Amino acid sequence: MTTLQYVLELLGTFFFAISGALAVRDQHDDLFGAGFMGFVTAIGGGTLRDIMLGSYPLVWIGDINFLYAILLGVITAYFFFKYLIQLKRTFVLFDTIGISFFTIIGVEKALSLGVQPEIAAIMGMFSAVMGGVIRDVLTNETPVLFKKEIYATACLLGAVVYLILVKLNLDRDINLIISSAVIFVFRIVSIKYKLTLPNFKR
Amino acid sequence: MTTLQYVLELLGTFFFAISGALAVRDQHDDLFGAGFMGFVTAIGGGTLRDIMLGSYPLVWIGDINFLYAILLGVITAYFFFKYLIQLKRTFVLFDTIGISFFTIIGVEKALSLGVQPEIAAIMGMFSAVMGGVIRDVLTNETPVLFKKEIYATACLLGAVVYLILVKLNLDRDINLIISSAVIFVFRIVSIKYKLTLPNFKR
Amino acid sequence: MTTLQYVLELLGTFFFAISGALAVRDQHDDLFGAGFMGFVTAIGGGTLRDIMLGSYPLVWIGDINFLYAILLGVITAYFFFKYLIQLKRTFVLFDTIGISFFTIIGVEKALSLGVQPEIAAIMGMFSAVMGGVIRDVLTNETPVLFKKEIYATACLLGAVVYLILVKLNLDRDINLIISSAVIFVFRIVSIKYKLTLPNFKR
Repeated sequence: MTTLQYVLELLGTFFFAISGALAVRDQHDDLFGAGFMGFVTAIGGGTLRDIMLGSYPLVWIGDINFLYAILLGVITAYFFFKYLIQLKRTFVLFDTIGISFFTIIGVEKALSLGVQPEIAAIMGMFSAVMGGVIRDVLTNETPVLFKKEIYATACLLGAVVYLILVKLNLDRDINLIISSAVIFVFRIVSIKYKLTLPNFKR
Repeated sequence: MTTLQYVLELLGTFFFAISGALAVRDQHDDLFGAGFMGFVTAIGGGTLRDIMLGSYPLVWIGDINFLYAILLGVITAYFFFKYLIQLKRTFVLFDTIGISFFTIIGVEKALSLGVQPEIAAIMGMFSAVMGGVIRDVLTNETPVLFKKEIYATACLLGAVVYLILVKLNLDRDINLIISSAVIFVFRIVSIKYKLTLPNFKR
Repeated sequence: MTTLQYVLELLGTFFFAISGALAVRDQHDDLFGAGFMGFVTAIGGGTLRDIMLGSYPLVWIGDINFLYAILLGVITAYFFFKYLIQLKRTFVLFDTIGISFFTIIGVEKALSLGVQPEIAAIMGMFSAVMGGVIRDVLTNETPVLFKKEIYATACLLGAVVYLILVKLNLDRDINLIISSAVIFVFRIVSIKYKLTLPNFKR
């Protein structure tokens, strides 16, 4: 793992923790509740992936820096709450960068553990979105997965693009950039033009 | 494992995926939401069992055919939604066959990993019902476990019957059929005659 | 592990199972629903901790006595429901003793598996409170974690005290008593004087 990637992962964790902590609602808005939600949002997806793959130690248990990135995120959210909460649009941007990047990192980790490409794609998507899903379940919200907007589908698509480009022997760093960009663009475009998937019931 | 059992497991997974996908509600009825629910319903119980027992790789991660059985189930649910949704009674039948069979398979797997019979009974029940419970939690429904009808209790009873017959050295295939039948009959009878367990509060 | 500690753990499991079973609501108040909730409340926290740490077998799977402690708790709750439900104040007391003790046991287990102290503190808190959180999620309640009262925070504080006293080489049994007492006193005082954490939104 390059130093750049490590820094990006810590940064992504930091932003996930901020967005989790900002999701506090009226019924649970104290320091602990917000901190816990920041924590769960940041580590949930990767934790579920690693438990399903039987990969120990979990990333945040093996490397304490991730815990400090989360703590820093929660503290940042605490001191700049009023300011950050107005930056909703900026946060959709950060969140989208985050899920794009974490999807591909998750796919790579799963592949490195020897699973089939189809499983790796699911694991990549899980890494990116399940932290938010667990957070939503804990707070009795409808998980973001089930909202009409395109979210996890973009992650799946990017994961598939990554896997195809691996087959084509594309350079790994270029592939990481391209397939992350696919997720990012697909999600932003679908927000802007309110694209949705076909309805199941019709 | 015999070929017949393998085919039955794939078939059970296929039916679980259909019943999960059909459970879409108005607030999350797109293709991804339904597919995800089919997936979770089909793999949730076995995944929880194997994680609790520390048995890796998880079944659907080690054998890609289960993923394709799920995909086929979701696609079937998509194309025949209007038709299938009218078959409610048929689906209770399929679901009951499914939980009967998966309970006993789960008990056997737990026993083969060396746990005590009491634990194996719980694991069998988990294999059968926890996929639906996770699905219900994700969609903010009251989990089927907590509804008045007899559901998980039938699984527990069948698991106990299986364990007793193992003690009595009954042939395994015959045992599988008898104890699955106990679950099936107990559940169908309790639906028909609206049987319920004693109320806890009285 | 001393015999005393083993007895205390079984006793704690017994009380957790009672308090879980008593939490039945009108929509799921049969024998199975209550038993399942007792079970989940009693084993949830330790199970999540051990899965995250990759420590197998899980405590209740490796030692069948824990299952019997739970069963006894559920049966006790069933036969003395009307009596026990009036003892609310007594139960807050038992619950507080329970989380105080289980937090420190959880910290010790995590430390013994070689994780960093910060991680051990989180694992101790998880051991104590996540059983109740999982129970609340299954029944669509707001998890106790997110209520205004001080709960998990007390566990975290006690865990930190324990870790500091370990650094200072205090005798282990004395440390266990002191840091459990910190949790107990902090929680009881905060209930009595309605102390809350700073509000995140301000």
